[in-house]
Amino acid sequence: DVDRRIGDRVLHQDKGCPPGGREMKPNCAILAVGTELTSGLSLNTNSAFIAQYLTRMGYECGSFTGVPDDINKIAIAVKWLLEGADILIITGGLGPTVDDLTREGLSKALDKDLRFDPRLAKIIEKKFDQMCKPMPESALHQANILEGAIPIEPTLGTAPGMIVEVKDKIVFALPGVPLEMKKMLEENVIPFLKGKKPSRMVPTRTIKTCGIGEVFLEEKVKDILVKHEGVAVTILAHPEEVHLRLSATGPRAEEKLTAIKDELSARLGNIIYGFDEDTLESVVGELLLKCGLRLGVAESCTGGLLGDRITNVPGSSRYFLGGIVAYSNEMKQRLLMVPEEILQKQEAVSPEASLAMSDGARRVTGADIGLSITGIAGPTGGTVEKPVGLVFVALSSESKGVCKRFVFSDSREMVKFRASQLAFNTLRLFLLEELESKGGETPGC
Amino acid sequence: DVDRRIGDRVLHQDKGCPPGGREMKPNCAILAVGTELTSGLSLNTNSAFIAQYLTRMGYECGSFTGVPDDINKIAIAVKWLLEGADILIITGGLGPTVDDLTREGLSKALDKDLRFDPRLAKIIEKKFDQMCKPMPESALHQANILEGAIPIEPTLGTAPGMIVEVKDKIVFALPGVPLEMKKMLEENVIPFLKGKKPSRMVPTRTIKTCGIGEVFLEEKVKDILVKHEGVAVTILAHPEEVHLRLSATGPRAEEKLTAIKDELSARLGNIIYGFDEDTLESVVGELLLKCGLRLGVAESCTGGLLGDRITNVPGSSRYFLGGIVAYSNEMKQRLLMVPEEILQKQEAVSPEASLAMSDGARRVTGADIGLSITGIAGPTGGTVEKPVGLVFVALSSESKGVCKRFVFSDSREMVKFRASQLAFNTLRLFLLEELESKGGETPGC
Repeated sequence: DVDRRIGDRVLHQDKGCPPGGREMKPNCAILAVGTELTSGLSLNTNSAFIAQYLTRMGYECGSFTGVPDDINKIAIAVKWLLEGADILIITGGLGPTVDDLTREGLSKALDKDLRFDPRLAKIIEKKFDQMCKPMPESALHQANILEGAIPIEPTLGTAPGMIVEVKDKIVFALPGVPLEMKKMLEENVIPFLKGKKPSRMVPTRTIKTCGIGEVFLEEKVKDILVKHEGVAVTILAHPEEVHLRLSATGPRAEEKLTAIKDELSARLGNIIYGFDEDTLESVVGELLLKCGLRLGVAESCTGGLLGDRITNVPGSSRYFLGGIVAYSNEMKQRLLMVPEEILQKQEAVSPEASLAMSDGARRVTGADIGLSITGIAGPTGGTVEKPVGLVFVALSSESKGVCKRFVFSDSREMVKFRASQLAFNTLRLFLLEELESKGGETPGC
Repeated sequence: DVDRRIGDRVLHQDKGCPPGGREMKPNCAILAVGTELTSGLSLNTNSAFIAQYLTRMGYECGSFTGVPDDINKIAIAVKWLLEGADILIITGGLGPTVDDLTREGLSKALDKDLRFDPRLAKIIEKKFDQMCKPMPESALHQANILEGAIPIEPTLGTAPGMIVEVKDKIVFALPGVPLEMKKMLEENVIPFLKGKKPSRMVPTRTIKTCGIGEVFLEEKVKDILVKHEGVAVTILAHPEEVHLRLSATGPRAEEKLTAIKDELSARLGNIIYGFDEDTLESVVGELLLKCGLRLGVAESCTGGLLGDRITNVPGSSRYFLGGIVAYSNEMKQRLLMVPEEILQKQEAVSPEASLAMSDGARRVTGADIGLSITGIAGPTGGTVEKPVGLVFVALSSESKGVCKRFVFSDSREMVKFRASQLAFNTLRLFLLEELESKGGETPGC
């Protein structure tokens, strides 16, 4: 979840590609148009999406820029960006309203006229028909296209995109609505670029760890990172997890990548929870399937976040039965059978209550494993002995009980998120042990 | 949640401030430094945060830019941005590692030397002492400061910031870690700017609606928007909610704002769920308190998201008891007492099952109101009659049952989110009716 990563501390230690290699990559600039972006009302997610895509394809994303809905500012930015970039991708400002001015800005920057394209107009009309909506006249503005440009027909929305070739440079104009932009990027821009210039994929892998801080992780693998030449390593710290991003260039890039990845895997063992697109919740799901175990949860301070994250994984119904959100003490007694003495003597935020909750979750749902979280998410409700951010995570199986104590100093929502992270990691380590004891597989691989 | 807003369709209809007024606003540019940003690995949230802050303070945010960790690119961007802006705020690249190059880029752009500041070095050393961490030698790089610059002492991290005045322009360099950046922005940058130039607050209000599409909302209030001069209106469409953002300038700005807000409120009635910082979950919480009613939930496809969102509101324990995540049919029977016949005849995704779930939630938790969601989040599991995205929301009180049917065509996570939005809205409308029948207050005000 992007917004949960807002607090990231990113350490990057790009050891760089050889300068020769870097020069050869086509350079790409991204321009986002919209006053809602420059005023901070909307977050510019498009640029990051495009940059990731193009970086993976072997392009160098040299910069991103955002300008308001203003013909002059768009034109100035386009001119300036085309001085340094081979490819310019513009998003936003292609809609029907009077402040959609990307067409006009491009026209000014490239000194090319706008022409009305009757074929595009028909397509736009048809789009409104299909949506059973009356077409406002302004929608036909969108059929204006730069002289010499290749139009991109709209499929999801009504705004056409545009491909303009200027000397040895290419400008793409795409809508600002993320879904529309993504579709045109994938179905029009990428194939067009592939046809134009053979792109060199930069092989990359991300190693994902949980349970170790970035400084300690770095310390632990420093000698390995230094040894492998031609591999760039970036350390990305997220809440309660740290990623190592490896990318290799030059000859035998894939081989180099495999070598460093293998060496890091051997060193880090089960600190590694997964690779690339893996998430803690997806990895935990796979492990539950491998072990043939089913999960039930009991949540207090996280209020349902654990179940929400588990069920973000498609197919989670194969191992997730359900859970109890026991926000009040009464619910903990009533729905999870937490003994009253515990709630009175040790209180709801205690190892005893946490273990009783996980055991209750297991018995109530009929699952093999119960996982529970109880804590004080804040911003108020803490005491000297039990401060805001204090969280207990517990796990119960038929034969075992595990309880862990954490203290997070963070906002309410982040305390909840961090607690869910470490609950998943507690479950992961338990399942790895289960697999190992069954003579299973190497952890973390 | 920012990432849940990724699919936003933003219509903006800024009717503009008078050009004279706009010219007078100091112009501000934002530069984010970091290869992790230009490559799309990290989302640039800092620029939006800063832009929001400064826009509210009455500054004009003319652009944002991102460049990689590259001295030349930083220097070129700084020079270019200072041509158009009175104020430049840079974030990132102030850390201790070799690719933290903002200091060097600034030095090159402004043609000022870097000088080692022994006082800053001591502060940095002390920071490491306090954290009980050994200080790497590279950390002292951070004590290098531009000739003539005012250093900003680090408090949360170890990276100092910098204020540089160049002729009539001001450059601020802040760390890239969001928490550190925010603290310096609020505690150093804003007070510095306030001392320098008297800023004019632009009064703004956001009207938040649920249950109407943006096109219909626009249609409904168009005549009002046109009538009020000197008020800029932006329509922001989020998943299942639409906001009207009003901002006024010139003389009697507050008065103008109140006038249009009142007229819009009267026209829109309970389509409006709240204002400014309100969220659906916070508004529903306030209404539950007003009515003196307590809530229990039953979730199937949302897996806990409803409870998670409810408990993001501090103090939610006053009205939220807890809930049941019944992901499997067995759980629906066992924990929510949904009759087996319903699950067999009507299936789990049906109005009958949904109502039985909400009733079960109410009875099991002992709450006054039960709220339930059941549906098919996808990406698979749909049929012709029950497609992916089909969701039933139901509400039960002692005397009443309400069930609503929705179909969302969206990703798994967005189907879950949209379902939770409309569950909150169903509850909100129910509670407004309750209040009204008690001779309560005007809805939406």
